[in-house]
Amino acid sequence: VSERKTLCVIGLGLIGGSLAASLKAIGGPWHVRAADRRRNTLEHALRGGFIDEAAESLEEGVQGADIVVVATPVRAIRTLLTSLGRLLQPGQVVTDVGSTKRSIVETARRELPESVGFVGGHPIAGTEFSGAESAVPGLFEGRPCILTPDAGTPRESLEAVIALWRSLGAEVVLLEPAVHDRVFALVSHMPHMVAYSIMNTVAAELPGREAELGGGSFRDFTRVTSSSPTMWRDICLENREGLVQALDAFSERLSEVRGLILSGDGEGLAAYFQRAALARGKPWLT
Amino acid sequence: VSERKTLCVIGLGLIGGSLAASLKAIGGPWHVRAADRRRNTLEHALRGGFIDEAAESLEEGVQGADIVVVATPVRAIRTLLTSLGRLLQPGQVVTDVGSTKRSIVETARRELPESVGFVGGHPIAGTEFSGAESAVPGLFEGRPCILTPDAGTPRESLEAVIALWRSLGAEVVLLEPAVHDRVFALVSHMPHMVAYSIMNTVAAELPGREAELGGGSFRDFTRVTSSSPTMWRDICLENREGLVQALDAFSERLSEVRGLILSGDGEGLAAYFQRAALARGKPWLT
Repeated sequence: VSERKTLCVIGLGLIGGSLAASLKAIGGPWHVRAADRRRNTLEHALRGGFIDEAAESLEEGVQGADIVVVATPVRAIRTLLTSLGRLLQPGQVVTDVGSTKRSIVETARRELPESVGFVGGHPIAGTEFSGAESAVPGLFEGRPCILTPDAGTPRESLEAVIALWRSLGAEVVLLEPAVHDRVFALVSHMPHMVAYSIMNTVAAELPGREAELGGGSFRDFTRVTSSSPTMWRDICLENREGLVQALDAFSERLSEVRGLILSGDGEGLAAYFQRAALARGKPWLT
Repeated sequence: VSERKTLCVIGLGLIGGSLAASLKAIGGPWHVRAADRRRNTLEHALRGGFIDEAAESLEEGVQGADIVVVATPVRAIRTLLTSLGRLLQPGQVVTDVGSTKRSIVETARRELPESVGFVGGHPIAGTEFSGAESAVPGLFEGRPCILTPDAGTPRESLEAVIALWRSLGAEVVLLEPAVHDRVFALVSHMPHMVAYSIMNTVAAELPGREAELGGGSFRDFTRVTSSSPTMWRDICLENREGLVQALDAFSERLSEVRGLILSGDGEGLAAYFQRAALARGKPWLT
């Protein structure tokens, strides 16, 4: 019989709720406790068997927890880390699930006592849905989970968090926080800004129902714009530098193709599209 | 017993091949003939029962055909319309499936005899796949098919083409050629340029395997870049004006969000995302 351990999830949204549900589904050693300001979210999770215990307060939530997972939008993660600084005991492990890492790791380093092991985390399992009602067990199975330890991260804390995600079938990848933010600015944050901008362009230019004619591909291009505005506001504010750089690199490419169109350069256009098709055709993207 | 009629598809790609296969599948009155420069494409379609007859030449293909459907990439459609001018007889109907309409309709008006009924067409059923090997019966079922008649289009020709697409389950929508090109610049052509540019940005900035970490959403953003470079080159060259205008409107929106990020305007960002979510949430887009 393995030892019972307590994990506290702070914030039962899509990711926090799915983490709790996944831990219950695999029947591991975890007693899953949750803290959330929304009382009915907690009650719903208790009734659904997604969590074992609903904490009445942040303090009650983290008390005695072996691992605390902060699973709120990014800015709230930083605020919570500040609050947790006074509540945690030596040896407790704290991790998070935020889509940006540099500012969160810096905040943790500054606000948490050295005796607490912090490991930045980012499971890549988001969808355009949000909220506990969208939570599903198994969400992390076969998906990457980025962890961003730094020089201050105790080895045992890192190992505990790696084991947690691996137990849910996630593929753990270690990155430096700044590298994480640069990569995700390019592969996620910038493309989301582009999708929002496509939608806002079309809404302004075609106020009627003509956009319906775009069919499946237009719906695909704009699906992510149903994501949580709060989550994306936070990501923009927290990865400002990486995101602006990625947007500028993108705008340069877009100017390139605009120039080819304007000058009627058929050969250049075909080469531009071929270049993208070749990059997209790499085995790890197909 | 209904009268046998002959339809000739010129170009057995995804759309032409699917049109032929769909007509055979519904078992209607059509004798389906095809012309294609690729001999083995024709033989494959004959063997697969997608067509009844393979024409040896364009001339043989259109001879006695009630309807001729030109289903090649956009620029080849214009070249073919010029060739067809000398081959067609009074009363024959010609339509096409090109993703741009204004230049095609102008070419048809100039190159085809008045006695031939031309109806511009654009079934919205493309995928990121291309070629006859991707053709499937039923591709047009429940999908819009835009037709762009003008003052010179005989009523009977328009009715024949409407009946053809409706018999395959398509929802026929009539638009003016210039309106079609403006709408599709916004809902399809510009977003494709954006997707190619995202892929080329990421390929340049992240030459390793980091893009893999983007997961499903990055793959979704860039899926369409596997489309045919020739097809997209032609669309760019044929809808230059509409596309450049759409790109400029998009770039303005993108500058707007870049400015909000740079100035750390959280409220403005949330409003920008909310605006897109509201537009995307309209019943005809969900």
